[in-house]
Amino acid sequence: MSAGSTIGVVGGGQLGRMLVEAANPLGIEIAIIDPTPHAPASGVARRHIVAGFDDEEAIRSLAADVDVLTYEIELADPDALERAARETGTPIHPTPATLRTIQDKLVQNETFANEGIPVPHFHAADTPAEIRAACRDLGTPAMIKARRGGYDGRGNVPIENPDNAANRLSTVGGGPALVEEFIDFERELSVIGVRGAGDERRTYTPAENIHNAEILRESVVPARTDDTIAAAAEELAMRVLEALDGYGVFGIELFETSDGELLVNEVAPRPHNSGHWTIEGAVTSQFEQHARSVLGLPLGATTLRSPTATSNILGDVDAPQEARASGLDSVLAAGNAKLHWYGKREVRPLRKMGHISHYDPGADSGTLLDRVRQLRDQVTFR
Amino acid sequence: MSAGSTIGVVGGGQLGRMLVEAANPLGIEIAIIDPTPHAPASGVARRHIVAGFDDEEAIRSLAADVDVLTYEIELADPDALERAARETGTPIHPTPATLRTIQDKLVQNETFANEGIPVPHFHAADTPAEIRAACRDLGTPAMIKARRGGYDGRGNVPIENPDNAANRLSTVGGGPALVEEFIDFERELSVIGVRGAGDERRTYTPAENIHNAEILRESVVPARTDDTIAAAAEELAMRVLEALDGYGVFGIELFETSDGELLVNEVAPRPHNSGHWTIEGAVTSQFEQHARSVLGLPLGATTLRSPTATSNILGDVDAPQEARASGLDSVLAAGNAKLHWYGKREVRPLRKMGHISHYDPGADSGTLLDRVRQLRDQVTFR
Repeated sequence: MSAGSTIGVVGGGQLGRMLVEAANPLGIEIAIIDPTPHAPASGVARRHIVAGFDDEEAIRSLAADVDVLTYEIELADPDALERAARETGTPIHPTPATLRTIQDKLVQNETFANEGIPVPHFHAADTPAEIRAACRDLGTPAMIKARRGGYDGRGNVPIENPDNAANRLSTVGGGPALVEEFIDFERELSVIGVRGAGDERRTYTPAENIHNAEILRESVVPARTDDTIAAAAEELAMRVLEALDGYGVFGIELFETSDGELLVNEVAPRPHNSGHWTIEGAVTSQFEQHARSVLGLPLGATTLRSPTATSNILGDVDAPQEARASGLDSVLAAGNAKLHWYGKREVRPLRKMGHISHYDPGADSGTLLDRVRQLRDQVTFR
Repeated sequence: MSAGSTIGVVGGGQLGRMLVEAANPLGIEIAIIDPTPHAPASGVARRHIVAGFDDEEAIRSLAADVDVLTYEIELADPDALERAARETGTPIHPTPATLRTIQDKLVQNETFANEGIPVPHFHAADTPAEIRAACRDLGTPAMIKARRGGYDGRGNVPIENPDNAANRLSTVGGGPALVEEFIDFERELSVIGVRGAGDERRTYTPAENIHNAEILRESVVPARTDDTIAAAAEELAMRVLEALDGYGVFGIELFETSDGELLVNEVAPRPHNSGHWTIEGAVTSQFEQHARSVLGLPLGATTLRSPTATSNILGDVDAPQEARASGLDSVLAAGNAKLHWYGKREVRPLRKMGHISHYDPGADSGTLLDRVRQLRDQVTFR
């Protein structure tokens, strides 16, 4: 039963906030751990433990108080979660094993490759010599990626010339890394997938994602690709779900190459920025779905309600400052547009401050993207 | 601008709770006054002042802390609100004058009648003799209604025989009353309307409402009536909005007679139970619309997204007891059904504990009603 259940969440950013917003109508309560006193989910969640993501005492206290533990950031500590779960008997979803797999980009690629899931060719490369060797095999340009801690493209840089290997390695943190072949993709797709109790798995309609400077700017559903490729993307996402463990929502990013091949780029073990369209555009939002799945409740329908585009509202400032937005009223005044505000007090360059959804059953994806960009461009923090 | 605004609400029941749920994504915060420590909106609202609806000190303290005051129950005290507003400079919407008009069923009828808005014929009747006189003029059966304090049909009783006038008067509280002609309606309709800044007024698609024992059981949109009558209902609702004052959402209940005439039954100065369908079925929910309107923000589109039926989940117990529901999982497992849970700790006979929405672009209203009733009948507190 949903009503009266409580989910403990490591992380209280915008994903945690939207999880609260989705859980409230079901009578599900959310308690968060986040070190930031005014984190986006703080104030809307029932309880906020102000503590670090790896604070074992805090995690244990949270675990003792909830029906299930989950996390909305990959930075969560799988060991601390596992110990808290063992000591309190509270389940964790997705499992710490899945979190460990996903936290290490090399292990993630190996896991998928071992299951026959197509990923870009890659090599582990921890030294300049290994990077040069990898580039000889994979060709240049190639991508060098930190094995851990990458987020929003941080920790991913192209490598044009193997002679720059040492420099590039330090750019991604200097630690363990991997080199991937450079994929000259036609477009980036993503599929939100969910694993529920009783081996139930579902996928949503694939989204097309537009990145700039490694940060997601817009997503649109349906993706502007062939129906056969869209169907193949959902099938591939199903195979990714099979390769992972535990209940929960996963954001599965794919490359579509110019010859129609699909490769898994990376997977997030949580609701994903490219799935925000599901709030208005699908029968069950990815956030409601995550709440249902981690509690072992029946999953909701993933059916598309309407073609939908979303755009992030990013900080358009040069330096951190108090967040004072203008232009939000024009978003409110637009028909069929929905504002989602994350309540962050400080705006920083390219920080995700909110997002806009625009849906229209009669519009094609290109039109939806144009319109949502026009709305987004009204909003400024300057 | 929405983000960072705060609305102070007198009342923290399910309407307040759903107002919080709608306001969160806009970055709008809600603070409530409610005497019940675990009121439905408590815990989800940013602040809960535990105080009576007419506690002037509490209302003043709330007013000093928010951008606008509103109320989600007609029991709010217009005089206390008006004084708090005057002392703090905080606006109140809808205006206390509108609240006073609506609180007194006789004044409400007179206000509409004076504007040429059709209402049932009525007479003020405070004594058994006046009731008998009214019945002679209006015929029997007639309806006797308390002028004040009626809610969910409480305070409304039919009068079959004028000789029972004294008995009936005491049934509706013994205080000031009115007698209305009995309307043998074909169906009950309601229109959610909204008044916004800059004289903006909008209406939603009319709902058809099914009552039983004076309590709303189900609503369905579109109503199963002629298009011309549906259009006339929206027009009539527009005239009702004109006759009132202040910003806000109004629930406008109508009778449709067997010869296609529309009469205003009663008006609520707040989001209305018969408008819960707007959460899934309209572009802007009545709750988001209320938040927008009272803050003077642009109104949202009232466009229908999908035919939708809602059913209240009422307490099916014989006496108050701790609320432990079963059957919610079958609601969660149904495609296109949405559960809304109010978080009430105690279930009482016929208490509104939650509601279910079911939408389907391809289904007619009768089918939607059948399906939502089947889902509702799975839920029990016994």
